[in-house]
Amino acid sequence: MIKNYKVIKMTQIKWVYNFDDGNSTMRNLLGGKGANLAEMTNLGLPIPSGFTITTEACVYYMENQTYPDMLNEQIIDELKIVEAKMEQELGNTDSPLLLSVRSGSRVSMPGMMDTVLNLGLNDKTVKGLAALTDNKRFALDSYRRLIQMFGTVVFSLDSEHFEDVLTEKRNEEKVKFDSEISVKGLEDVVDKFKAVFKKDTEMDFPQDPKIQLDYSIKAVFDSWNASRAITYRKIENIPDTWGTAVNVQCMAFGNMGDDSATGVTFSRSPVTGEKTLYGDFLVNAQGEDVVAGIRQTLPIAELETIMPEIYKEFVEISDGLEKHYKEMQDIEFTVQKGKLYILQTRNGKRTGAAGVKAAYDMVGEGLIDKEAAILRITPGDIENILFPRISWHTPQKKVEIDSKIIPVETIGKGLAASPGAATGKVVFDSDETVALASEGESIILVRHETTPEDVHGMYASRGVVTATGGLTSHAAVVARQMGRPCIVDTDSQSIMRVDIKNKTIRSGDVIIREGDFITMDGFSGKIYKGELPTEKLSELPSELSKILNWADSFAKLEVRANADSPIDNKRAFEYGAIGVGLCRTEHMFFDEGRLPIMQKMILADNKEERISFLNILFEFQEEDFYEIFKSAEGKPITIRLIDPPLHEFLPKEIDLVTEMFEMRLEAKDELSEAQQKELQTKERLLVRVQEINEMNPMLGIRGCRLGILFPEIVEMQAKAIFTAAARCENKGYDVHPEVMVPLVGFENEFLAVRKVIDRVADEVFSDTGIIVDYLVGTMIEVPRAALTAGEIASGDKGAEFFSFGTNDLHQMTLAFSRDDAGKFIAHYLENKIMDSDPFETIDQAGTGKLMQLAVKEGREAKPGIKIGICGEQGGDPASIDFCHRLGLDYVSCSPFRIPIARLAAAQIALKDK
Amino acid sequence: MIKNYKVIKMTQIKWVYNFDDGNSTMRNLLGGKGANLAEMTNLGLPIPSGFTITTEACVYYMENQTYPDMLNEQIIDELKIVEAKMEQELGNTDSPLLLSVRSGSRVSMPGMMDTVLNLGLNDKTVKGLAALTDNKRFALDSYRRLIQMFGTVVFSLDSEHFEDVLTEKRNEEKVKFDSEISVKGLEDVVDKFKAVFKKDTEMDFPQDPKIQLDYSIKAVFDSWNASRAITYRKIENIPDTWGTAVNVQCMAFGNMGDDSATGVTFSRSPVTGEKTLYGDFLVNAQGEDVVAGIRQTLPIAELETIMPEIYKEFVEISDGLEKHYKEMQDIEFTVQKGKLYILQTRNGKRTGAAGVKAAYDMVGEGLIDKEAAILRITPGDIENILFPRISWHTPQKKVEIDSKIIPVETIGKGLAASPGAATGKVVFDSDETVALASEGESIILVRHETTPEDVHGMYASRGVVTATGGLTSHAAVVARQMGRPCIVDTDSQSIMRVDIKNKTIRSGDVIIREGDFITMDGFSGKIYKGELPTEKLSELPSELSKILNWADSFAKLEVRANADSPIDNKRAFEYGAIGVGLCRTEHMFFDEGRLPIMQKMILADNKEERISFLNILFEFQEEDFYEIFKSAEGKPITIRLIDPPLHEFLPKEIDLVTEMFEMRLEAKDELSEAQQKELQTKERLLVRVQEINEMNPMLGIRGCRLGILFPEIVEMQAKAIFTAAARCENKGYDVHPEVMVPLVGFENEFLAVRKVIDRVADEVFSDTGIIVDYLVGTMIEVPRAALTAGEIASGDKGAEFFSFGTNDLHQMTLAFSRDDAGKFIAHYLENKIMDSDPFETIDQAGTGKLMQLAVKEGREAKPGIKIGICGEQGGDPASIDFCHRLGLDYVSCSPFRIPIARLAAAQIALKDK
Repeated sequence: MIKNYKVIKMTQIKWVYNFDDGNSTMRNLLGGKGANLAEMTNLGLPIPSGFTITTEACVYYMENQTYPDMLNEQIIDELKIVEAKMEQELGNTDSPLLLSVRSGSRVSMPGMMDTVLNLGLNDKTVKGLAALTDNKRFALDSYRRLIQMFGTVVFSLDSEHFEDVLTEKRNEEKVKFDSEISVKGLEDVVDKFKAVFKKDTEMDFPQDPKIQLDYSIKAVFDSWNASRAITYRKIENIPDTWGTAVNVQCMAFGNMGDDSATGVTFSRSPVTGEKTLYGDFLVNAQGEDVVAGIRQTLPIAELETIMPEIYKEFVEISDGLEKHYKEMQDIEFTVQKGKLYILQTRNGKRTGAAGVKAAYDMVGEGLIDKEAAILRITPGDIENILFPRISWHTPQKKVEIDSKIIPVETIGKGLAASPGAATGKVVFDSDETVALASEGESIILVRHETTPEDVHGMYASRGVVTATGGLTSHAAVVARQMGRPCIVDTDSQSIMRVDIKNKTIRSGDVIIREGDFITMDGFSGKIYKGELPTEKLSELPSELSKILNWADSFAKLEVRANADSPIDNKRAFEYGAIGVGLCRTEHMFFDEGRLPIMQKMILADNKEERISFLNILFEFQEEDFYEIFKSAEGKPITIRLIDPPLHEFLPKEIDLVTEMFEMRLEAKDELSEAQQKELQTKERLLVRVQEINEMNPMLGIRGCRLGILFPEIVEMQAKAIFTAAARCENKGYDVHPEVMVPLVGFENEFLAVRKVIDRVADEVFSDTGIIVDYLVGTMIEVPRAALTAGEIASGDKGAEFFSFGTNDLHQMTLAFSRDDAGKFIAHYLENKIMDSDPFETIDQAGTGKLMQLAVKEGREAKPGIKIGICGEQGGDPASIDFCHRLGLDYVSCSPFRIPIARLAAAQIALKDK
Repeated sequence: MIKNYKVIKMTQIKWVYNFDDGNSTMRNLLGGKGANLAEMTNLGLPIPSGFTITTEACVYYMENQTYPDMLNEQIIDELKIVEAKMEQELGNTDSPLLLSVRSGSRVSMPGMMDTVLNLGLNDKTVKGLAALTDNKRFALDSYRRLIQMFGTVVFSLDSEHFEDVLTEKRNEEKVKFDSEISVKGLEDVVDKFKAVFKKDTEMDFPQDPKIQLDYSIKAVFDSWNASRAITYRKIENIPDTWGTAVNVQCMAFGNMGDDSATGVTFSRSPVTGEKTLYGDFLVNAQGEDVVAGIRQTLPIAELETIMPEIYKEFVEISDGLEKHYKEMQDIEFTVQKGKLYILQTRNGKRTGAAGVKAAYDMVGEGLIDKEAAILRITPGDIENILFPRISWHTPQKKVEIDSKIIPVETIGKGLAASPGAATGKVVFDSDETVALASEGESIILVRHETTPEDVHGMYASRGVVTATGGLTSHAAVVARQMGRPCIVDTDSQSIMRVDIKNKTIRSGDVIIREGDFITMDGFSGKIYKGELPTEKLSELPSELSKILNWADSFAKLEVRANADSPIDNKRAFEYGAIGVGLCRTEHMFFDEGRLPIMQKMILADNKEERISFLNILFEFQEEDFYEIFKSAEGKPITIRLIDPPLHEFLPKEIDLVTEMFEMRLEAKDELSEAQQKELQTKERLLVRVQEINEMNPMLGIRGCRLGILFPEIVEMQAKAIFTAAARCENKGYDVHPEVMVPLVGFENEFLAVRKVIDRVADEVFSDTGIIVDYLVGTMIEVPRAALTAGEIASGDKGAEFFSFGTNDLHQMTLAFSRDDAGKFIAHYLENKIMDSDPFETIDQAGTGKLMQLAVKEGREAKPGIKIGICGEQGGDPASIDFCHRLGLDYVSCSPFRIPIARLAAAQIALKDK
């Protein structure tokens, strides 16, 4: 196609567009930046004049290593138009036109050429500029910057050669910053820069501005094929044939006197979202002075006093831009000798809260509709609102402590497993955490990994850090559910080393001991030394609640909660869950009073003994369910029968053996009778622990297999569920239990467990005279269950609902143990073996196929069967998107993820329209 | 349908068929037995006359609790025909007709009514029979048997009431056996039996034979609804509406004098298959006398001398039956007063060797064609030929030791994991096994479980017993491959308990100590006390080789071997493998000289160190591959890259901790410097072991993940493969390596590993100047690999072959850990949750669906891609059947299963025609 340019009439091709000639739809031809500059110009905004050389010209140049016919002529024509508008002239000593040259492809891309500013300066025009601005220092500084930029950007010279000159000069004048160098000194720097340029390029720095321009344009073209750009395009699948445009634009100066100024201002507050201009400016200053923070800036409101006309114009422009772009704008402006120029406008980066409020307000203002408001908010916005975060004083990650602005010291990094920030004393033991927290201390619990026996410590802590584990490790899952920030896998991700035995954290030379303060950022996964300030909102802002209510009316997917207790339920319903999709029952057995009975039940020698302990557990569990049903507010509660392998409730073999040896070591040969007895007890326990131990517990006796080998466990749980339900109904509460059988792989497994459940229900209903409506369904978490979903759903006694247990389903479909895979998942992501962590986002190409099959066969066997997902991925927007497309009925996730899930469910429904 | 009988013309219905009227196709109407009696009668064989009452009559009776119209009349009509033929009459005192009454449904079924014999005897006819046979004893004994059978079978009386009478009489006469009771005594017994009958039924024993017959027929009908029969039908899905037929047949007596005889004879030898009559007979005797072994029987050949005409007739009948049934026949006959009757003929039960020889010979004789010969042999026949077995002296599990026939003492039972029998001294430790075996002792290695560190002990042993593990546990898989008999999971399957620590086996009161002899039967899974005699064939019998060669020409599936060494290869090729489908490489690292280096490689702190140890391992492995390729006879060898998680090569955490504590305990406080150093070394090792440990190693860092995290391991293996291949080619051997990547789940995993393999191959080829053709393919053992098989096979660099690793594929698809599932698989099979053990036979409904998908997508992406299976199921006939239907190219299995696989592959191809 490119080659054809030669055969068509060359003169007809327009290679250069004045900003007046383009618009935002011409992105492919003019690049993103060029199209935007044209758009703004056409909006009537005071944009410094300029023109764009098209991507087609670039493509021609790349193929032929020369400009196309007429390009040079067109550049000169457009330049003349600009000169006329600005009443300046390139190279004119009295009224020099200065230009910037920037690359600009369709999408922004690293590796492309940096900007060349101040183009047009030379030994003569620099004097004109000095006179015009009455600022010789500024003129010389601009000139030395041009030489430096031209040298490094266009000729790829070593920037150190220039920096060396500056350093030498600073030392000579004994000053700290370049801005303190004297005028005399700058004159010298300019000379030396020219010498550096000549030495490195073997040519003089070009004094002819047209030649400066020519070099710069060609340098932009060439940068399209810079190796970093090529690599990036390969990774992102961007065609090499797109090429880049070149933007040539007049410089505007805010430092031409007291009728000049420069500033950066948001159309609304990027912190709160309030509709009021937010930003600052400086009179007689350059743009970078505002950012650098050397001079004290003025709040934008004061512009009204200092330059009332300009302020009025700016407010109009700001409003106009918001109306045009329908988003909060971040606007850079310069006032040059009483004339306002808009240099740039873009959608403003803002906090989650600001984004939500602005979106909500804009609906009220008629700027956007509800759908647009919903689509605009991101999951990150909601996380940002709901969870505490570190109060950064500056974007450079400094904080303010005791009125001092200080940098922070990073000691480690892990996977960001649960969002939020927390600060507290390091403790390495869960019991200790509970003890200290009860005294009012803020504790960060640091463990090698966590187990169900750490749950009380995790709950008492402000946050949890583990050395190992992945995003769905025990620590991560439980912390997310509790709303505690959590960072896992620091061992693989950083040099930080946790030493539980010696109660220390080492990171290089830094040693953190138990009781020392650290701060963790669950958004970034970073861990900092010391007690950094944090901040947090206490509840859903009303604007977010309202937007989420709008969202619910668009969403196809319902959102349920993974919630195991009345407290969880309360929070989940406040956050908008329509029910509980996963109420785990095994957590109920880890309480102080229950674990010993649970252990005795497991270690029982025969069924009778087992049943006697189950009877005690029944009392506890019935009460648990009663409270859960009472707090259900009439919403459905999906209760999963006990799932984990029994040895999770017993001591570990290695711990037992160690204890026994330590007893013997300590006692030497003289074991007392009591000790001998204790040793014998432990010995017996050890034998049972070894018997129950499994090589791969994830694939062993757990889930429904427990209930098939020991039907009395199912009986106890079913009896507790239905007795509690009947008691609730009796007291006037509306109860909808949905009993869920875990780890089903065979139709007959489901039928065997269901038979027990139905029988016990009948017994309880006949004993109490109260009949409770209930459903019996199954997890789909074993690949075979997905493959035979039709059989499992078929018939009267088939499953009445499916809930994809995507954690386990991924474990088995991918052969990734949640507990072990952290060790290689990071490596896989880094090396692009996988696109995303399957424990975070559903693996659509693999596991997703199984899910699709299960939905299809399940619905064929039982039309209208309710299907949901209750794995960790249920709160992940990309996974929610997939669930929507699969046609699921609901997703279920941690209470803290519910607002995000509601949003995501609405967004995909809207996109789908 | 049944009800309709009443509206159609009842008289037209034929409820009773004389044996002359039926044939073998009328199974549904006449039952299996009735149809066969009819068939034999129509063949012109001298069958005692009789008739069959149809299943339809039974169905009518069940629905209406009464005979249908005309049934009684038809019975009387048919009885008259029989009486006429036999020149006897039911109830006739001079020439009494005696009958047997038997049930007979479409398929043989437990719980149905037992036979009533001698029907027709009463107080009068018993005298006629005595006169006729000149044997009062026989007549009385027959009569007392009738009363007993009639009482227990028809009236369900307690058999003990009859037995008590006999016991009393024996005690009274001071004899040991019933057959020794005097004539007088028998008269008394008959009287007492009648009294028992009267007491228990409150009626006299019916003297009218017609009434006896009527009761018996109705009892047969009623037995269709006996609870055992109903249960059996439920389990086997046999409709309750089938009903049973009733067979009424004349008795024939071989004890009516010296012109009478009785015998049981095979048409060929059931031991060797030779074409010569095999069996024995007795003159003037009843059938049961031949079986009971009280009188010394005569070999059938002697019948020619004693009754030449009868012998001639029998030989003709035997040949005729073989021609008709085209199978070796097991014929029961009786000569009653010079007339030969055939009582029964059926396909003879024979040894595997006999089955094979007979089938081969019958092809030569033109009796059957090659296809029939192939279809006739069973996998069990081949196992029976190839593996040693216990030399049972009698079917009652007695053996002959030192010329004494003694019963055996069973001490335990487990899963029959690898066929064959072995006897030897019990040893509980692998090193000890090697030591004793090298002194010429026969050892049975007994372990709790085996690990790769037991492989040398397993090899040195005669057989392996483990307390835990399933049919694809380490012990089972390795033992099968070695051809050692193996029994696993004795803990769950029996009361036998293995105590490794105290080196004993307990089974109830029996204690077996190290060094005591046991005998194991890998066919049945039983373990016996003591040294029982065993026997074994040394090579494939020539007839089997020839039949398998015929088989190969019909089979669509090729058969490869799972073989890791030149010795394995040799045996595999002798047994007809066309190549190696799975050569595992990790076994090569467990050798004495290699394991320490392997461990150092794993424990290396950095890549350089790791590579230095890999370089040493390279030398070993290159030599291994060289020998393997040399022994390949030009056949393709599929080499799987290292697969297991690395901690399999390291000591266990618990063992290390125990060792360390024991050192400290032993030394008390006084650890020498050397000991302290050793302790420190162990401590360091422990830390690494803990780091490498995984919660679920099956789903952790293994297979291709090792090669992606440590590409240097793949490099070493690839270099060893290609260097060895080049060396072989250089010496003139033809080499076809196929490199197989394990545990692939993602296309990118395969590509990453393949990239290393291809690069190393190029390097070796360029270094050596020799180019070897090779393929690179993948295991399909992770469900995701099956789901994304299309991607994995696609493109130039995609997999060139697939091999289903059905062991792992089942583990993950079903979430069944091979090491742990033994604990519930037995329970699942027993409770019909599953139909078969998925580690033995492919789970077609679940895992099979994934395989189907993978074949479809793989072939779509790469037409003609070679696909096979190398899991343990590759040697299982039902799985081979499934693989054939999937359209796979090959199955690969243990060398010892290859003849079976070749047979099964041909059988399914023939059935498919």
